[in-house]
Amino acid sequence: MALVLAEYAPAGADTMRVVEMLLLHDIVEIDAGDTFAFDVAANVGKAERETAAAERIFNLLPGDLAGALRARWDEFEADETPTARFANALDRLQGLVLNDAAGDGGTWRLHGVSCTQVLARMAPIETGAPALWPVVLEAVARAVARGDVSDDRS
Amino acid sequence: MALVLAEYAPAGADTMRVVEMLLLHDIVEIDAGDTFAFDVAANVGKAERETAAAERIFNLLPGDLAGALRARWDEFEADETPTARFANALDRLQGLVLNDAAGDGGTWRLHGVSCTQVLARMAPIETGAPALWPVVLEAVARAVARGDVSDDRS
Repeated sequence: MALVLAEYAPAGADTMRVVEMLLLHDIVEIDAGDTFAFDVAANVGKAERETAAAERIFNLLPGDLAGALRARWDEFEADETPTARFANALDRLQGLVLNDAAGDGGTWRLHGVSCTQVLARMAPIETGAPALWPVVLEAVARAVARGDVSDDRS
Repeated sequence: MALVLAEYAPAGADTMRVVEMLLLHDIVEIDAGDTFAFDVAANVGKAERETAAAERIFNLLPGDLAGALRARWDEFEADETPTARFANALDRLQGLVLNDAAGDGGTWRLHGVSCTQVLARMAPIETGAPALWPVVLEAVARAVARGDVSDDRS
């Protein structure tokens, strides 16, 4: 996904480092156990579980490599550099694309997610990958029109 | 895996392009259906199925992007550049690492694979990632000692 959307990266984002970050992030998430984005209870302690997983996994490697890959993961988590912000935006976008492409609202409908919840979840895309923000708004409008998410915007 | 083993890449191999190749290769393999490496019958027509899948998938993208990613996949398949040969070596190595780490011979034992078959399968590592070849020989020796693969070397 990062390879395909590389041309939408904002200035200053290094797209190959984005790929690295997303791969490393997934490994930690697999180890810590992924949680459904809108499940508030399941997300309690998520950061601590992932940090513990990162601590364990990266330290399986020799010191210099452990440090380099851990630094990349820390950069992703801190979400401050253009590279990390673009990577985080793509991570959010993936959930939207999957639910949009599912045609039946996927996990949004399954768990009764509202329009406002989706937009809040996608907010990092507006700043991290502004060129892709219109795509988000279109997909959310489609989801509302299909009744995949409830329209709770006031 | 490519990120972790980047330091073993031979001169001339671009490790970020290796990551790209392996990701693209997996997408095509998922679409075409992966086949067990030692299943001769299942591997008949594999190249044709994968080429058809690549044709379909990459052409879902806009022309310039389709061309660029397809070129990367073609480079991997041609297995001629140092980058492609290192990528192919890692692709082979992954199967060995998984079966070695399984502790019970994994799919080697399950399908009665012999030592000679494993070594033939791993041969691209000797040329594509020579620094990793000793690891292969050690793992194969371990597999023979444990009886995970039959010792058919004359």
